[in-house]
Parts: sequence; C-alpha cells; structure tokens
Amino acid sequence: MDTLQTILNHRTIRNYKNTPVPDDILNTILESATRASTTGNMQLYSIIVSRDEEMKRKLCDLHFRQKMVIDAPVLLTFCADIRRFNKWCEQRKAEPCYDNFLWFINASIDAILATQNAGIAAESFGLGICYLGTVTYNADKIIELLECPEYVVPITTIVIGYPADTPPLTDRLPIEAMVHQETYHDYSESDIDRHYKEKEALPITKTLLEENQLETLAQVFTLKRYAKNDNLFFSKKFIETIIKQGFKIQ
Amino acid sequence: MDTLQTILNHRTIRNYKNTPVPDDILNTILESATRASTTGNMQLYSIIVSRDEEMKRKLCDLHFRQKMVIDAPVLLTFCADIRRFNKWCEQRKAEPCYDNFLWFINASIDAILATQNAGIAAESFGLGICYLGTVTYNADKIIELLECPEYVVPITTIVIGYPADTPPLTDRLPIEAMVHQETYHDYSESDIDRHYKEKEALPITKTLLEENQLETLAQVFTLKRYAKNDNLFFSKKFIETIIKQGFKIQ
Repeated sequence: MDTLQTILNHRTIRNYKNTPVPDDILNTILESATRASTTGNMQLYSIIVSRDEEMKRKLCDLHFRQKMVIDAPVLLTFCADIRRFNKWCEQRKAEPCYDNFLWFINASIDAILATQNAGIAAESFGLGICYLGTVTYNADKIIELLECPEYVVPITTIVIGYPADTPPLTDRLPIEAMVHQETYHDYSESDIDRHYKEKEALPITKTLLEENQLETLAQVFTLKRYAKNDNLFFSKKFIETIIKQGFKIQ
Repeated sequence: MDTLQTILNHRTIRNYKNTPVPDDILNTILESATRASTTGNMQLYSIIVSRDEEMKRKLCDLHFRQKMVIDAPVLLTFCADIRRFNKWCEQRKAEPCYDNFLWFINASIDAILATQNAGIAAESFGLGICYLGTVTYNADKIIELLECPEYVVPITTIVIGYPADTPPLTDRLPIEAMVHQETYHDYSESDIDRHYKEKEALPITKTLLEENQLETLAQVFTLKRYAKNDNLFFSKKFIETIIKQGFKIQ
C-alpha cells in the first residue's frame, strides 16, 4: 500500500475479527519496528509479543478491561530497555551509566519510534491497530505479569488484528493549531476558540455533553476521562515504578 | 512509494543538497504528523518549523554543531505541549490537571508518534531525515531560542532535505535480540555474545577501536559517545528544564 495512503487513512480500530495474524506478516511487522531510528543505534527497547489467550485475558484486566485486548489476536508491548545494553557493556569491560532519567527518555523514544513503525507496517497489510495508553497507568502490574526485570519499563502497547469494522477518520484540530513557524506563537483566546470550534461543533460532542450532563467538552476530559485524582495517583505510581526498575529520576 | 519499502529502506541521512522542500510537500508531511494516534485525541504536541538560515545557524550550535542542521532546508522540532489544551480548559470552565509526570510522558508519546509519521511521510517523497538526539541535552537552550512558554518541552527534532548521498542500511541486532514471546526472557551471557557478534565483527567496529585506542565496542559507547559525566550532567539538566516548564515530577 502507498505510504501516504497508509498514514493518512489511519484510524484506531476497536473491533476485531478473530482471524489470526500469519507468522510471516507478524515477522515483517517486527522487522519494520527494528528499522526505526534509534539513539546511537543502541536499540534500547524490547518487544513482548502476547498471543496466548490466558495471557491476553490477564492483560485485559490491566488495560482497564478494554475488550479488544482479548478480541485482537496480537498485542505488542514495547519497553524502554537498557538491560540488554548494560549486560553487553558488563561482558565487555565497559561501565554503563544509563540508569538515569535522560536515558529512560532516550530508551522510551527508541521504543515509541519502533512502535509506530510496527503500527504503520501492520496497517499496510490491511490490519488494524489501537494504542493502549493504559500501559503507563498499570506499568507496575504489567511488569509483574510479563516478568520484566530491572532496567525494563513498558511504555506503550498496540493491539493488532483484522478490523471488524471501518470507523470514519477521527477529527483532528486544524494543522495550524499545532504548527509554529520559527518560534512558538502563543495562543490568544480567539486562537483557542478558532482551533477548537470544529471539534466542539461535532455531533459526538453534543452526545457526550448530554450523556455526562456537562456544559463543555473540556469538562468531559477534566472531570470524566482524565480526572485530577486519577492523574495524580497514576503519575506517582509510574514514577515509583520507573525507580523500582532501577532508573534514578535525577 | 510502498509503505514497507519506505520503512525497511530507512537510513539516516547526514548529507543534504541545498534544494528547498516545496511547501505542498511540507504541508503533507505536517498533515501526516497530525494523523498519528494521540492520547484521547488530545494532540498534546506542537511542531516548530525552522527554515530561516540564521535560526538554523543558532540551532546548529545547540545541536552540538552537526553540520546537517545548517545544510538541510527544514528542521521540525516536536514538543510535548499541554499548554494549548490547558488554555482551552481554562476558557471552557474546566480545571486541567495535566502538569504532572504521567502527562509529560503522554504528551511526549504523542509528540514522538507524530514525529515518526512526519519522518516516514518525508521519506515517501524521496526526502531524507535524521533524528537529533541532542534535543533532550539542550532542551533549556532550545526552549529559549524557539520561545517555548510554560507547559511546552521540546522532545525530539528531525532534519529534512534531499539526500546528497545514499548510505548503506545501518546494521541492527538480530530481531530475536529484541523480541520476547509472552514473557521477558532474560539474557544469558551466551545470548549477549550471540546477539552482538555480528555488530562486533563489522569493519566499522574495527576502525572505531583503532581510532579510539579501545579494546571493546561497548567502551566506545561508555567512554566516548555517551560517557558517565555527560549522562549525569544532561540528565539533571533535562529534569530541571521540565520542572522549569511547569511539570511536577511527582
């Protein structure tokens, strides 16, 4: 499939057929992941493949019971991983010093670039994908289930499978809302009104406001979807998890 | 261009022609960025476009004087950005609570997925790209130069331009070095030896050892490329920068 067509037609798929993903296709998806750019060609990530039904049921609980985790045949969990590199250093008379915040971020960038390559490759085969943002919420429990040792932190997961439906393209803010020429141009009140106007006028917004008995779409985010107490709770837990896995946040 | 061909043929381009990138192509690259998956469709990122020659010269200094920053016609700096979303919330009677570590990571993931889409889209037009890992090293100075306000943190940059050469594909570890089935299978000494064997046998490795007068390739990383004192210095500086931009690391 044409590259731009693949990218511009991306939609998140939440309903899957139970058709398995053939091994040769999965291997090409994994190979595509490893061709992504990586800091100093260090490849500071690992990919954990979940296909076992029982494993997927357990993962489903950790991903806030999103049914697609069971329905989709494959989950790929991408981890920031300095463990393999550290072990190599130690076996080669070199003293690694990557257990700090900077390298947690570098390893996370490596992992996320690899994930996006895998997702785009999957879509080029007519497969659908969905990112699970729940990884950073329950990284501690995912670590336990997937047996991630020290220096390995799951950062994102995609589910992969054949789509059972073709949802419409999701709305996006107008491109000029995100793009700044040469320097960051801060948003005036009228900029914000203009950029969010189309989103706020969507039929789905009206439905959400009625369902939630709220006045604005922004309140759906701050009070329902990503509420203050949850944010603070999961933020603290994620930092503790990273530290427990051996990274110093300093 | 075919999607898999684009992904599997990716090479980092370090030498560029001075041919400009046409506006319509750049716009399609930016549109491609915005089609990437994003947490709750919140689009927590901004993209700063650098094409001005003087701006590129200043950026070049901050990116450790990598000449391609001047040679390539376009730089795109992707920022984790909760500012636009916060402003929207505040104008819509909603109280945002995204100035914490979890949402710094979520916004960074959004920004990095958008970057990889932009890079792949650029390559589909025959353009070359290179990631600049130096962003996290000098985020504080890049923030100053690009006038990033509170709640905006640059996380990665790609340079884009027409390649002046076609380097060979970069080596990668064998796929099985990164991939784990169902659970993480920790590396034995012989696993590490096997996974790094090919890399260690490359002619470039021999050259690097001679140039640096070192015994192992791992030492080239730990003593030369990414040395302890630099890692600790830049790690501390990056955390301070994130906090200064308004995120609480808690």
